Amino acid sequence: MTDINLTAILYEKDDLRLEDQPIPEPGPGQVQLKMEQVGICGSDVHYWTHGRIGDFIVKAPMVLGHEASAVVSKLGPDVTTLKVGDRVAIEPGVPCRTCHFCKSGRYNLCPDMKFCATPPYHGNLARYYVHAADFCFKLPDHVSFEEGALLEPLSVGVHATNRAGVGLGNTVLVCGAGPIGLVNILTAKAKGASFVCVTDIDETRLNKAKEIGADFVVRVANSDPSKVAEEIETVMGTKPDITIECSGAAKSIQTAIYATRSGGVVVLVGLGQDIVEVPVVNAGVREVDIRGIFRYVNCYPTALAMVASGKVNVKPLITHRFKLEESVKAFEAAKRGEGIKIMIECSRS
Amino acid sequence: MTDINLTAILYEKDDLRLEDQPIPEPGPGQVQLKMEQVGICGSDVHYWTHGRIGDFIVKAPMVLGHEASAVVSKLGPDVTTLKVGDRVAIEPGVPCRTCHFCKSGRYNLCPDMKFCATPPYHGNLARYYVHAADFCFKLPDHVSFEEGALLEPLSVGVHATNRAGVGLGNTVLVCGAGPIGLVNILTAKAKGASFVCVTDIDETRLNKAKEIGADFVVRVANSDPSKVAEEIETVMGTKPDITIECSGAAKSIQTAIYATRSGGVVVLVGLGQDIVEVPVVNAGVREVDIRGIFRYVNCYPTALAMVASGKVNVKPLITHRFKLEESVKAFEAAKRGEGIKIMIECSRS
Amino acid sequence: MTDINLTAILYEKDDLRLEDQPIPEPGPGQVQLKMEQVGICGSDVHYWTHGRIGDFIVKAPMVLGHEASAVVSKLGPDVTTLKVGDRVAIEPGVPCRTCHFCKSGRYNLCPDMKFCATPPYHGNLARYYVHAADFCFKLPDHVSFEEGALLEPLSVGVHATNRAGVGLGNTVLVCGAGPIGLVNILTAKAKGASFVCVTDIDETRLNKAKEIGADFVVRVANSDPSKVAEEIETVMGTKPDITIECSGAAKSIQTAIYATRSGGVVVLVGLGQDIVEVPVVNAGVREVDIRGIFRYVNCYPTALAMVASGKVNVKPLITHRFKLEESVKAFEAAKRGEGIKIMIECSRS
Amino acid sequence: MTDINLTAILYEKDDLRLEDQPIPEPGPGQVQLKMEQVGICGSDVHYWTHGRIGDFIVKAPMVLGHEASAVVSKLGPDVTTLKVGDRVAIEPGVPCRTCHFCKSGRYNLCPDMKFCATPPYHGNLARYYVHAADFCFKLPDHVSFEEGALLEPLSVGVHATNRAGVGLGNTVLVCGAGPIGLVNILTAKAKGASFVCVTDIDETRLNKAKEIGADFVVRVANSDPSKVAEEIETVMGTKPDITIECSGAAKSIQTAIYATRSGGVVVLVGLGQDIVEVPVVNAGVREVDIRGIFRYVNCYPTALAMVASGKVNVKPLITHRFKLEESVKAFEAAKRGEGIKIMIECSRS
Repeated sequence: MTDINLTAILYEKDDLRLEDQPIPEPGPGQVQLKMEQVGICGSDVHYWTHGRIGDFIVKAPMVLGHEASAVVSKLGPDVTTLKVGDRVAIEPGVPCRTCHFCKSGRYNLCPDMKFCATPPYHGNLARYYVHAADFCFKLPDHVSFEEGALLEPLSVGVHATNRAGVGLGNTVLVCGAGPIGLVNILTAKAKGASFVCVTDIDETRLNKAKEIGADFVVRVANSDPSKVAEEIETVMGTKPDITIECSGAAKSIQTAIYATRSGGVVVLVGLGQDIVEVPVVNAGVREVDIRGIFRYVNCYPTALAMVASGKVNVKPLITHRFKLEESVKAFEAAKRGEGIKIMIECSRS
Repeated sequence: MTDINLTAILYEKDDLRLEDQPIPEPGPGQVQLKMEQVGICGSDVHYWTHGRIGDFIVKAPMVLGHEASAVVSKLGPDVTTLKVGDRVAIEPGVPCRTCHFCKSGRYNLCPDMKFCATPPYHGNLARYYVHAADFCFKLPDHVSFEEGALLEPLSVGVHATNRAGVGLGNTVLVCGAGPIGLVNILTAKAKGASFVCVTDIDETRLNKAKEIGADFVVRVANSDPSKVAEEIETVMGTKPDITIECSGAAKSIQTAIYATRSGGVVVLVGLGQDIVEVPVVNAGVREVDIRGIFRYVNCYPTALAMVASGKVNVKPLITHRFKLEESVKAFEAAKRGEGIKIMIECSRS
Repeated sequence: MTDINLTAILYEKDDLRLEDQPIPEPGPGQVQLKMEQVGICGSDVHYWTHGRIGDFIVKAPMVLGHEASAVVSKLGPDVTTLKVGDRVAIEPGVPCRTCHFCKSGRYNLCPDMKFCATPPYHGNLARYYVHAADFCFKLPDHVSFEEGALLEPLSVGVHATNRAGVGLGNTVLVCGAGPIGLVNILTAKAKGASFVCVTDIDETRLNKAKEIGADFVVRVANSDPSKVAEEIETVMGTKPDITIECSGAAKSIQTAIYATRSGGVVVLVGLGQDIVEVPVVNAGVREVDIRGIFRYVNCYPTALAMVASGKVNVKPLITHRFKLEESVKAFEAAKRGEGIKIMIECSRS
Repeated sequence: MTDINLTAILYEKDDLRLEDQPIPEPGPGQVQLKMEQVGICGSDVHYWTHGRIGDFIVKAPMVLGHEASAVVSKLGPDVTTLKVGDRVAIEPGVPCRTCHFCKSGRYNLCPDMKFCATPPYHGNLARYYVHAADFCFKLPDHVSFEEGALLEPLSVGVHATNRAGVGLGNTVLVCGAGPIGLVNILTAKAKGASFVCVTDIDETRLNKAKEIGADFVVRVANSDPSKVAEEIETVMGTKPDITIECSGAAKSIQTAIYATRSGGVVVLVGLGQDIVEVPVVNAGVREVDIRGIFRYVNCYPTALAMVASGKVNVKPLITHRFKLEESVKAFEAAKRGEGIKIMIECSRS
């Protein structure tokens, strides 16, 4: 196989192939990127194993990958903010720029968003890729390509804690210690949360949470959400001001509501069942607000500032590294649930 | 029976008695009030018919009534903001003033709130009553005692629409056209909502909603919440920015979520089942926030300003009038679901 | 002179000419517009009489006009939201869509904004004009072209009162009863302000303010700002929660600060001297916030909703009407300070 | 002299005496406190050297001191939240609890505030003192009395950065590296500011700023505010999102406005001349908001959480220590401008 632009293409459920492709040319306002690092996200694996996520169905071959960093290799017309050779992190969604959501600072809700590796739009797990220049963020020299790629999950933490209003001196509960739980711990601490408690059913994950900065952990064994909430209050010595639910499990959502102090906020980050039994009276009369998130909006600059200024260290999230040529192997490891974050290096050795 | 201070006392479920009582004396910071008008609220009726609301149980005889206006008849020590003869509306809850909630402007969440006619605290359906002076709001001469009493339900509308963030040009859906639905229509319009749509299962209530200012009404017949949401969108020509759910019905809560535009807000005002099946993924990924309310906070001044400036007309809400001596008859009418708002006149004829 | 596309071009200070021009063709995402009504703004007159406003200098011939309505006469490529024949109001500034301000919902601060009749960008006082489709807002049939053009100044009122946080029950002071003061009165009332007081030095303007809805007026004669503030408090019976300063006069800015209640907001709308003596300690220790505005952002939909729903009536603002051919006469009337809003009809008779 | 309750009393300008006093008894809701540490604030020194601050005039002997920690020595009636022996930090102002400001979470603006060592109210530089229990905050064992006393200036930093909206990834400019500048640096960093730049005219203070965490410092020599603003932009590599002005100097306030990025915020903390020439057009059209602060509100819990969780280290602020008996010597050192924070130990040796 030639390798002009080796690319990881999902043909359909369970059919991920590495194929050569022509190198794409940048249009107006776009840049051509020589890809460097791409992290594997749960959604990439889910498309591979199920061929769909909800209403998003893989109907035509689609390139995977959306947690990425790269080097600018060519400028399209009218690009003035970047130059060839710039090292960048790629914010993977490009909105329409003209709808009400785009104009009012909530472009993540744009109905015409083109988001990498969400059907029918291609991702960037390839040697070369083209993207809107203003969604590429220049990395300072001391920020690595791996860190650049990790701005993507970190941005989810920034958005979730923004929506929660996490601030100085807050007490925060994070439910679920997977990769998204971990970036929320990092972000909550960076925003000045006085302490963060983390729940999970898995001891190993909780250990990672502690390693990364959680002040308390609670291993969830009891199946009664209000009992778990009491346990959390005992451990924290207070009800948390804010709870960030990252598991998507129905019982965990219920726990999140019971656990949070009156006047607080529960942010729903994890996605599980479409419909969940929610204690609406408990939440309602205590004015515990329930807010979901969809990806992130205007969070890359913040995530980059955090990493560049040393406020957070995302490197401990990386547990596995593969080459682009080994992509299928990398996905198999991810499918087995190994480690936390698996990175794929896209540049030729 | 003597009538020093005729008082409507709920002894237990189904046992409401009119009894004479001594006239209470005002303590420091308090005023003695000669009661004028008291509206009957659904909660008053519920305590009468069930002896409890949730965890609030009538264990000892309790005076009913909390939607009230009065004339100041005596000043306690240190009262400087009112004088004898002042006509006032009574905000019925007096918080502890020292907890975190009280200090941070959310006294409605104070765990030590003393709220009229919520066990174990007495209400004010009587000839005389004593209350904290700073929770009595002076009525201008042109605002009637009936309007003063109606500031209580109107404050619920103010708080709900505050929590919702209703503003100029918003499109608003109000689910449920009972008294609380109606005050939300009035308040949403006063805040500049460009149009308000109201749902109910009852045609008569919907007519009242239209009379009071609703731009659209939808009679809910279909039992599928997403179908009802579509119907609402068709009628309004858009998804509402904000939905204020006043029925407490599970299906209506579901409809509220499906109906609201992405990035919007659903406020839960009505209380029904403790636990409801909520489409959390639909709400979450569209960032439709879910917020409950508990009574109101700092809303009396706003409600009074609305009525005093003529922005809203609450008089059409009143459908029945009784004398204090006829209180049991008044409660029976309320129990039968007659009319909208039943007022009891407390002053001697 | 032929009249393919008669256009009002400012060649330099005092040199406004009507000339024929070719009809422009719409590019991607743009529409060609047959112009209907264009209002004259103080800035148009100022460019004509001074050739500049601050750093914005007329260095090349520039078409005037930016308060406009039109009919869509041709669609550029990719336009799907409008069709030929649609009646629209034109939001006159088109931002870059890619900078931080544009992405975060504050596109009015975009440094690359192209704004009609702000050098070097042409305005739309002409028979035909081309504009970005997403900055054209479809008018319902019952909203006239004159009302459509007036959405521009009305949007300034929407933005100023948004920045001020005007809400239900607020007391509002508007300093200056010129066209911008008037749209702020209209908007504050539409947002539920319980009463609005207006100051000016001119009796006629104050009468117009009363006619349009001001509850109180104060004719400013005294030259001591703190005395004027006291006078305002006496008239209003309270210090205003919010003051919207529309005159730009130094003394009026000082009055605005002294007059506003502690914890309130002063919005600076009027522009006068670059540097003004401000009572910073008075404002600071009373936490009276000082906020400026620059044009408006996301306000056209709100302004349109206000007019379309009948919440505000902008028609009384119009005092003079001219034809495009009479543009110089119209500008002369505006220069003489006649009336409030002068409209120019751009369609051929 | 007996020493029942040795107390530092300011009789008038330049007349500070140590006198014995009876031990005060706590009333309802109050606690008697055995004082531990009291920091000297610039305002204490100013009352001593000038006999007044603005309209606050020392007309009768007044106890100095308001940055304090203590041990609870006796409970007044109805106190349930503290017990004898509790170590506490004292928030020095007790508001009326009944006005609009108190009820809406802005008690710092309460017109009836009783604030320690602000005439006519006594401070707590004494052996014993009585205070409202709910304004005493229990210190964990590992937080020292000195740290407890320093929560007072730290709370100013919390309030200023709250008003500024400092958040994760913000760039912050602090003008003035005195004690209040330093607590703002600490707080801005704790809230996740990516970097903080500090200005001062004094090299030694700037060194302290760097020591405590400032990322950049600019020694102000140039007298042209817009030139200084340019210099700051060069050093920071960007205009700051937020500027916290702690010097009160007119030129520094002007610099603050020119320096701040469009859409940003300038918080005025320092107090100097009553009236300052402010570039209102520059601030206004760039929507740079100007906000003052008055003391703090609901900031002690946050300040305590910061210190207790180790987020900030306030100990380096302390440069001098004296005994209560040496109070005059301590004030003389403060008057000479020595060091940063001077602490007085109030417990008997």
